[in-house]
Amino acid sequence: MNPWWRRKLSIGSMVLLSVLIAALVASAGRAQNTSEPPAAQTASAATQPPQMEGFGRTRSAAEAQLEKQFLAIPDAARAESNLRQLTSTPHLAGTEASHRVAEWLRDQYRSYGFDADIESYSVWLPMPREIKLELVKPKHENLATPEPPIPGDLDTWSKHVTPDYNDYSPSGDITAPVVYVNYGMAQDYRELARLGVSVDGKIVIARYGRGYRGIKALLAEQHHASGLVLYSDPQDDGYAAGDPFPDGPWRPMGGVQRGSILYTQIYPGDPLTPGFASVPGAKRISPADAASLPHIPTMPISAEDASVILKDLDGHHVPRNWQGALPFTYHVGNGHVRVHMRVVMDYRQRPLYDVIAKLHGSLDDQWVILGNHHDAWVYGAADPSSGTASLLETARALGELVRSGWQPRRTIVICNWDGEEPGLLGSTEWVEQHRTELQAKAVAYINTDVGVTGPNFTASASPSLNDLIRAATRQVPDPDTGESVYEAWAEHSSAGRTELSGVARETAGARTSGEAPVGTLGSGSDYSAFLDFAGIPAVDLAFSGDYGVYHSLYDDFYWMKHFGDPTFAYHVTLARVLGILALRLDEAGILPFDYSNYSSEVSRSLDELAARASQDPSEYAALQPVVDAANRFAESSLREAMAIGALEGTTVNFALANRLSLALADVEQSLLDPNGLVGRPWYKHTIFAPGSYTGYAAESLPGITEALNHQDIATLKVESNSVAQALVRASECLDQISRMAQAASVPLNPGPPSGRE
Amino acid sequence: MNPWWRRKLSIGSMVLLSVLIAALVASAGRAQNTSEPPAAQTASAATQPPQMEGFGRTRSAAEAQLEKQFLAIPDAARAESNLRQLTSTPHLAGTEASHRVAEWLRDQYRSYGFDADIESYSVWLPMPREIKLELVKPKHENLATPEPPIPGDLDTWSKHVTPDYNDYSPSGDITAPVVYVNYGMAQDYRELARLGVSVDGKIVIARYGRGYRGIKALLAEQHHASGLVLYSDPQDDGYAAGDPFPDGPWRPMGGVQRGSILYTQIYPGDPLTPGFASVPGAKRISPADAASLPHIPTMPISAEDASVILKDLDGHHVPRNWQGALPFTYHVGNGHVRVHMRVVMDYRQRPLYDVIAKLHGSLDDQWVILGNHHDAWVYGAADPSSGTASLLETARALGELVRSGWQPRRTIVICNWDGEEPGLLGSTEWVEQHRTELQAKAVAYINTDVGVTGPNFTASASPSLNDLIRAATRQVPDPDTGESVYEAWAEHSSAGRTELSGVARETAGARTSGEAPVGTLGSGSDYSAFLDFAGIPAVDLAFSGDYGVYHSLYDDFYWMKHFGDPTFAYHVTLARVLGILALRLDEAGILPFDYSNYSSEVSRSLDELAARASQDPSEYAALQPVVDAANRFAESSLREAMAIGALEGTTVNFALANRLSLALADVEQSLLDPNGLVGRPWYKHTIFAPGSYTGYAAESLPGITEALNHQDIATLKVESNSVAQALVRASECLDQISRMAQAASVPLNPGPPSGRE
Repeated sequence: MNPWWRRKLSIGSMVLLSVLIAALVASAGRAQNTSEPPAAQTASAATQPPQMEGFGRTRSAAEAQLEKQFLAIPDAARAESNLRQLTSTPHLAGTEASHRVAEWLRDQYRSYGFDADIESYSVWLPMPREIKLELVKPKHENLATPEPPIPGDLDTWSKHVTPDYNDYSPSGDITAPVVYVNYGMAQDYRELARLGVSVDGKIVIARYGRGYRGIKALLAEQHHASGLVLYSDPQDDGYAAGDPFPDGPWRPMGGVQRGSILYTQIYPGDPLTPGFASVPGAKRISPADAASLPHIPTMPISAEDASVILKDLDGHHVPRNWQGALPFTYHVGNGHVRVHMRVVMDYRQRPLYDVIAKLHGSLDDQWVILGNHHDAWVYGAADPSSGTASLLETARALGELVRSGWQPRRTIVICNWDGEEPGLLGSTEWVEQHRTELQAKAVAYINTDVGVTGPNFTASASPSLNDLIRAATRQVPDPDTGESVYEAWAEHSSAGRTELSGVARETAGARTSGEAPVGTLGSGSDYSAFLDFAGIPAVDLAFSGDYGVYHSLYDDFYWMKHFGDPTFAYHVTLARVLGILALRLDEAGILPFDYSNYSSEVSRSLDELAARASQDPSEYAALQPVVDAANRFAESSLREAMAIGALEGTTVNFALANRLSLALADVEQSLLDPNGLVGRPWYKHTIFAPGSYTGYAAESLPGITEALNHQDIATLKVESNSVAQALVRASECLDQISRMAQAASVPLNPGPPSGRE
Repeated sequence: MNPWWRRKLSIGSMVLLSVLIAALVASAGRAQNTSEPPAAQTASAATQPPQMEGFGRTRSAAEAQLEKQFLAIPDAARAESNLRQLTSTPHLAGTEASHRVAEWLRDQYRSYGFDADIESYSVWLPMPREIKLELVKPKHENLATPEPPIPGDLDTWSKHVTPDYNDYSPSGDITAPVVYVNYGMAQDYRELARLGVSVDGKIVIARYGRGYRGIKALLAEQHHASGLVLYSDPQDDGYAAGDPFPDGPWRPMGGVQRGSILYTQIYPGDPLTPGFASVPGAKRISPADAASLPHIPTMPISAEDASVILKDLDGHHVPRNWQGALPFTYHVGNGHVRVHMRVVMDYRQRPLYDVIAKLHGSLDDQWVILGNHHDAWVYGAADPSSGTASLLETARALGELVRSGWQPRRTIVICNWDGEEPGLLGSTEWVEQHRTELQAKAVAYINTDVGVTGPNFTASASPSLNDLIRAATRQVPDPDTGESVYEAWAEHSSAGRTELSGVARETAGARTSGEAPVGTLGSGSDYSAFLDFAGIPAVDLAFSGDYGVYHSLYDDFYWMKHFGDPTFAYHVTLARVLGILALRLDEAGILPFDYSNYSSEVSRSLDELAARASQDPSEYAALQPVVDAANRFAESSLREAMAIGALEGTTVNFALANRLSLALADVEQSLLDPNGLVGRPWYKHTIFAPGSYTGYAAESLPGITEALNHQDIATLKVESNSVAQALVRASECLDQISRMAQAASVPLNPGPPSGRE
């Protein structure tokens, strides 16, 4: 045992140290390899491939050859044809159209050589029966206008367009004065309180943006509003951002953002089966007991309709930054404008159809899982079908490799979820049903959702996978620049925030020393149950761009063909990135998880929280166990990295590599607390969760963060202990891995044999 | 001589040191005073007043009593009546209406007991004959609509409203395609070049804001545009900022900002008499030789008219942040939209009428000057009459004090300038005419212009006067808060930028350690000739608020009565602040100029420039003489502060106090370079000037700053030597003051007598 590992170090210096050691480990690995005799190369590998993390040199060459074969297969014409098929009809979750899409997908996977089936669930899911809004004062005017069709875009003329509604709104019929609440987020209500404006009994109108709409609904409910109207301000995704559809990719004045308001920040999935699967015989809770169901009628409208309401509001001139792009001065409203809203929802049990397709590996007890949802609000060209059209090409290419004689090392599972839009239903129920098996077999879950809206690669992940994503994107060419996807990604993100046309969109996640940034995972797509509930390391990928038609009728094939990806080159690129990631995880001898990155992320977050808590001695004291545990986690991750690094260039036997791989994948599970977060026990991950009052965005150390937000010292102590224990468990897992690796390796530093703990 | 003063110190540490020493000096001063026997107090001074800078304790008490008397006199009803009188008719410079206002003002000052007269100049000044704009493609539409009258505001229905025009535009008649250039500032043209868009031969349309309109005209000319149309985007001062007039204080869609485009950044004043006065017999240059005259037709229009042009522009979607608040996506324009503009100006010699009113002091060779302009674009309620209405109350109150038996120590001169709006004409000609006398007699110039638009105090000044402004505002109550103006000012500015209703307005100037911020002086009002040309220490003061009717018809009495200052309480407050400042400067034994602040400001600016230059060894080397001279200036200012500080509490004879006062006021003149800045010799101040490409905003060390901007090493060397020599001259002045003071005082530190240089 090296005594200097044991020294107490501040969090900050541990981070610095980890960077140094990682560099050391990398160079040590390289040095060992260069002293090796040249490996036999396959005849077709023209150039010496660089060594890959998790592959020896011999296996790196084989992997490079395999990846080269793979990269040649995905095809733009097929991706386009997939997208045209997927977007041929509206296919809302819970409808027969969604079932037909699932069957078509299953058949596609079978044709590629996958073992594919549909798994079905019965969930509590409403359908809109009547959605009505009218201005009743100062004059009468009917609102809630359906999205108008567009000449030249035949899909928009269909009779089967999904109504504009917010899923999981309760039914209700109310008439009340209107108050404008800006984005309807927590700070907006604080501002209203400062102005002395109450929303009690009012219908609040909030613009979309800055957070999940289910947070807006919960806050409106908590502030005793009687109803909620959501609209899309042209400042955020309409004409102020850029040319509206069909002249450009942004939202036209008549466009409406549908969307669920299910309180997925409390738990996602079927609201009547929290934590267990909606299978026959499951004992469902009563809707009245379902904490994820909203309580006030909520509906979405267009900017055009919103302007009718907003332009007549009087009272307080809005606070700075509340003004949107509609052509008048915004006011909060003082009671003179009244609207009548009527929402009739038909709640019942409805079926969902998940498609699960497997390509069996020689190690059938280790699964690399990829997934996307297939249900859409209307046509869903970008959301989600661009991801699905790409994923199908990934699957077809993997199938082609099998036909050419290859067999995956691990089993590759491709999933197409139903019911993502209402609240991550299909993925959540499946993970809840198969949790034990997944926790035993799954090594990672790779998600894509709105797969392609433009050329800018973005990724969020469990931090242990950040470097793997960077490595995979280095292998795939970027269609626009001719460089690799990685280089285009790094250049684009070094240009700072992607702030095109006045719309600010944050580049995901924190930057690390000059590398392209990988964000952390919040919520909003199907990775949530995998990571937050089951502790499976997860990744979410996309190519993004100017996209104002989210959840509208106009997110259709015409939009994609004219704006999102006219040549389908980025669909092919996404298929390639997904495939390379899957192949690296499938083929690696020892899975390339990097827990130094993970511990750096924990330390960075903890530093920020400690700085916040430093004003209050009792808060600061409550964090001490976490600081100690984070230091231990950092030490253990460094030791593990060195121990695994020392194996590079040695021959590791197959059984040990498998044991090490499963153990590496399992570290994430050790970070779960079986009791979950205080107040939302479904969320079991102690390090990452969607914010209770942000929704989509990830919170790091969520229990501690929110306890500090609420200055709740009792909860802070509970959450700190939970995090500290999780980090100690993770450290123990890593120490165990170090011991396994050290037992098999030549020590990195000559000297007396390392001690065992 | 203390040898440690001579040590070479970095600029940064000099700044720190100066703060330390200033504190030391202050505490030494206090300590000496407490060891003094209590001074005789006047019977009516109820409480022990704090000692004032420049006054001994005895004289502090008398001054406090005088100020108390003064503060009681200004009256809201009289300020309102002044404003109603001043805004009763449109009174554009060069018209008989402006002459009548001057005569009324002269008579007012005479009635207050001032020795008042009109001084007249004949200047080259155009009047608009025809201003026409029409859209000719894609359809015909007449634009350049006059500002519509407002029901309930009778003044807006006058037949004598000034046309909407840009003063000093040349005449011209052109038809050309339109290109939108955002704010029309330098970075906007760089952005257009990046997009590959040329404005050669085009009519460019630019929104107002982010810089002086004369810069926009010069840049359009330099980029070979054939014409310039300026408009007010509702994002900047219209409905997006807040409720438009007459519902609120912001610009209505039909409102137009008039304004001069004279290149005052090159030189202000009559364009045909740069550097000398437009008096009979002056040898005028030809208009063709006048570098301040613009060359392409320019005119202003309303947002309403601008939207007709902008909504049809196509071509490139605008870069981020170019989108304004009009309700469509902005485009740069690709030639399909054409307009016809016709500008006919009647250029000739026209008369100006400056009002000069004196209240003679016992020291008639030391002048404290206050001023504001009296000409207005139309009614000019805020700009400038709110300042004038207040200044009249200051004058009346001073007159009352004289009637009650007081005589000023120094002579107080109050000036009301004509022709400020066309280009600071009246003040510039007067300063040019009286330069020698002013440089001998003037101790400071206190300006106000748009005196009152709301409750937020702002000030800019020669840094030597910053602390005096803070001291004066501590004596005046703030009407809203009941605290002092200083406290309200400090609180308001500590809340950060004044960003009301989405409109960003920078809090002027840099912040110093927790104190309310005083900005540095750029240009845009009548202090320019005093400071930039004659080296008279200057101050500019205002109470500001939401104000969108700048240079429009709607800046009228109705606006002020409903929005700007309905009770005229801030007019009274401004009158009081102006008066207290004047009284402090008038009555002080030794004038309270603080050159430690000045040298800190120089060092701060130089630090920034040195950081910019540090990439280039030759640039960095060129700055070395300035760094040395700034260090010497810092040392000398500290020594001077200590030497003057040591006189506090001693009896200084009258003659010496006067010699010291004049010497202190003259330090600013030593910072002038008789050759002026490279390329604009009228601007003689080496430390402050308006930016050549920013216009209103002050540039510190302007010659060096612009040479660095242009990477012009030859100019950099010239300007660096000029600044270095100026700082050495200023240091020598301060050293001379220190010697005079030391000769009269007991040394602060016991020990051998200080050496003389």
